[in-house]
Amino acid sequence: MRFVDLIEKKKQGFEHTKEEINYIVSSVANDKVPDYQIAAWLMAVYFKGMTPEETARFTDAIIKSGDVLDLSSIGSHIADKHSTGGVGDKITIILLPLLAACGIPVAKLSGRGLGHTGGTIDKLESIPGFRTNLKITELIKKVQKNGLAIASQTKKLTPADGKLYALRDVTATVDSMPLIASSVVSKKIASGADFVVLDVKYGSGAFIKTEKDAEKLSELMIDTAKKLGRTFTAVISSMAQPLGRMVGNSLEIMESVDFLRGKSTPDIKELTYEIAALTLLHFEKVNTKLEAYALIDDAIASGEALKYLNILIMSQGGNPDVLNDYSLFKQPQYTFEIKAQSDGYVKNVDAYKIAYACKLLGAGREKKSDSIDYSAGIKLNKIYSEYVKKGETIATLYSDSDEKIKVAEPVVQNAFEFTGEKPGERRVVYKII
Amino acid sequence: MRFVDLIEKKKQGFEHTKEEINYIVSSVANDKVPDYQIAAWLMAVYFKGMTPEETARFTDAIIKSGDVLDLSSIGSHIADKHSTGGVGDKITIILLPLLAACGIPVAKLSGRGLGHTGGTIDKLESIPGFRTNLKITELIKKVQKNGLAIASQTKKLTPADGKLYALRDVTATVDSMPLIASSVVSKKIASGADFVVLDVKYGSGAFIKTEKDAEKLSELMIDTAKKLGRTFTAVISSMAQPLGRMVGNSLEIMESVDFLRGKSTPDIKELTYEIAALTLLHFEKVNTKLEAYALIDDAIASGEALKYLNILIMSQGGNPDVLNDYSLFKQPQYTFEIKAQSDGYVKNVDAYKIAYACKLLGAGREKKSDSIDYSAGIKLNKIYSEYVKKGETIATLYSDSDEKIKVAEPVVQNAFEFTGEKPGERRVVYKII
Repeated sequence: MRFVDLIEKKKQGFEHTKEEINYIVSSVANDKVPDYQIAAWLMAVYFKGMTPEETARFTDAIIKSGDVLDLSSIGSHIADKHSTGGVGDKITIILLPLLAACGIPVAKLSGRGLGHTGGTIDKLESIPGFRTNLKITELIKKVQKNGLAIASQTKKLTPADGKLYALRDVTATVDSMPLIASSVVSKKIASGADFVVLDVKYGSGAFIKTEKDAEKLSELMIDTAKKLGRTFTAVISSMAQPLGRMVGNSLEIMESVDFLRGKSTPDIKELTYEIAALTLLHFEKVNTKLEAYALIDDAIASGEALKYLNILIMSQGGNPDVLNDYSLFKQPQYTFEIKAQSDGYVKNVDAYKIAYACKLLGAGREKKSDSIDYSAGIKLNKIYSEYVKKGETIATLYSDSDEKIKVAEPVVQNAFEFTGEKPGERRVVYKII
Repeated sequence: MRFVDLIEKKKQGFEHTKEEINYIVSSVANDKVPDYQIAAWLMAVYFKGMTPEETARFTDAIIKSGDVLDLSSIGSHIADKHSTGGVGDKITIILLPLLAACGIPVAKLSGRGLGHTGGTIDKLESIPGFRTNLKITELIKKVQKNGLAIASQTKKLTPADGKLYALRDVTATVDSMPLIASSVVSKKIASGADFVVLDVKYGSGAFIKTEKDAEKLSELMIDTAKKLGRTFTAVISSMAQPLGRMVGNSLEIMESVDFLRGKSTPDIKELTYEIAALTLLHFEKVNTKLEAYALIDDAIASGEALKYLNILIMSQGGNPDVLNDYSLFKQPQYTFEIKAQSDGYVKNVDAYKIAYACKLLGAGREKKSDSIDYSAGIKLNKIYSEYVKKGETIATLYSDSDEKIKVAEPVVQNAFEFTGEKPGERRVVYKII
């Protein structure tokens, strides 16, 4: 088989056979094909797509390019969750202790942030001492002991995807449905969970812009997982506006802690409850959604969920005192308050602009090798539908650099839209598939 | 400017600005961009194309990536010719001495063969001693002295195209109209000729399969040249069947010599006369095509054309005795005659199959680094419309290996189609633009 012939075949729009897919993926995994040929093939896939059958084959080959975790020693009710990437998306940090408190063990592998979306691993590492480079045996042991643990993604899982993703990132081939689906599904299956909830985001702060595309991607991922014998569920949710009030690393940990203490914005609550309830129902911990909500309410009100976060932090070397004293987080050198220029209700806070400003403040990375400032970020003092008077603070910027604040300030100012009339209730969950 | 953004832009189908095109080409020429990004961009160009304006910008940038030959010291009537690649295409070897004999100086840069099409340089190098690695100053001096010279393409001309072509070859992005047009036109303009005849081939032995596509490509190349202030003319010709009877390196030199002695097949004569006449008309050596044909007839009948081939060979270190004694060429170890299995007229000899068989016999290369066997090749004892009796020889195979002959034999057998009735006259020139 010659790789150039496979590029030509895909360019012509033909479906690859199983043998061809295996050849492609093993060539990638074993560095047997030059990057320029993979890049050309990826662009051909962008234009010509893959059939559902082909996507499943590709996903399967990616899974087999590395290890597949065996979590059966923990039990058969292992839950996992994946977000396609959002702004202010701290749901995983909240869900971990929440599900553990409801009796669902969570052994989570998570990634770092890249581009405009943050990463759960980065956020957790803003807790002084928190260690995420656990070995798999360590991860399993901790889940067995505590009911929850989280580790940064190991290169031993789906190594072919790691290489493909790095190449897609620099060749403008990220936004291809079959490539996204195979990347997500392969990683989740290799991570060993029994049930996975996908949080598929659309809108300005997501890389998918429309409900329709989010739906298409969700269906493709669920179908791909099904063809490989797994049950995935998708929650399609809006990323037009950031989730909650906090965007940044330590800032999002604080908001997660607040949530587990019962203090929340409606959007975070809606999404967290939805994903948690789907998981509880799947594993038959409850019979109805209402029962699930009650169980979640109770886990928060009783302090159980927060207790599990405390356990998680201690178990992974972090300082649990941050839960009661946010000043133990690295503090930003500069704080700047943006004031409203007139009265009105907040109609929209553009998620992409906020994410972009956040990166400007030092909270994100452009390249994998960039370092990030855990204390940098944005607090949205006012969010959707809240009333603001001229001169009141609408957002607070945090950074290590006054210069960065100067550059980010107009972007944040520009992210806000106001209206004279109070806007209606906003739901973030669009659909469950 | 980030290269990934330019890939994205082309992927979305937008036109690149002049600045972007210059950035792309200079990044390629100066190795400032990794091959995988160029490969992804090339594939996006394959799918989304380029506007005529963009193609001209791209061509101009490629020209400016290297030297541009100044042939003005030779005169202002410098002719050049380019074939998009065919099977048995020895027209350049015939034209060079023919035009020189008609008073048109020819300073030619030519390429080596790759894939299933042969290269003029390889063919000439089958003449013992013939040297083609001339410096440009040497090339010019020889043309000044003798009226003709030929050199292998220097890397100093259109270096960006050299890199792009090498990458297109291995990423299945050769067959893109704007990429072909810019590659050909940039090379021809940088080679410094005043007038260029393009021989654009279509059919089984060409990479363009249909008249329609050949016409589109011709128009694009002429338009691109015009936008850059040059006059190009295109002869669209069929490559359904090989040109003449000989396919191989030294074999094609022999057939060229035969032609200059007045012995020719109709197809070679038609095409050579057409291209030569266009050139003579352009430089006003004649007033009508008929006058041109008479001039060409005379150059051959008088032996002037053959004399110029003799001069060319001597001037470039080759042994001119080959002109009178073909046994001075390297001789093949094995010769095999294919016999007709029934009576009939030859209806078709598939050019691609003959080219493929020729490569199997050792006459071509798969990779640039492959060596070739100058004596290998195929003689078509019978060509289009000729009558053959069962048991008569239809083709003769030459190779250094009996094994290679065994593999090539059924391919050649299969290339022939016969018919009971004598087929009509065949024209190879489809159109002149």
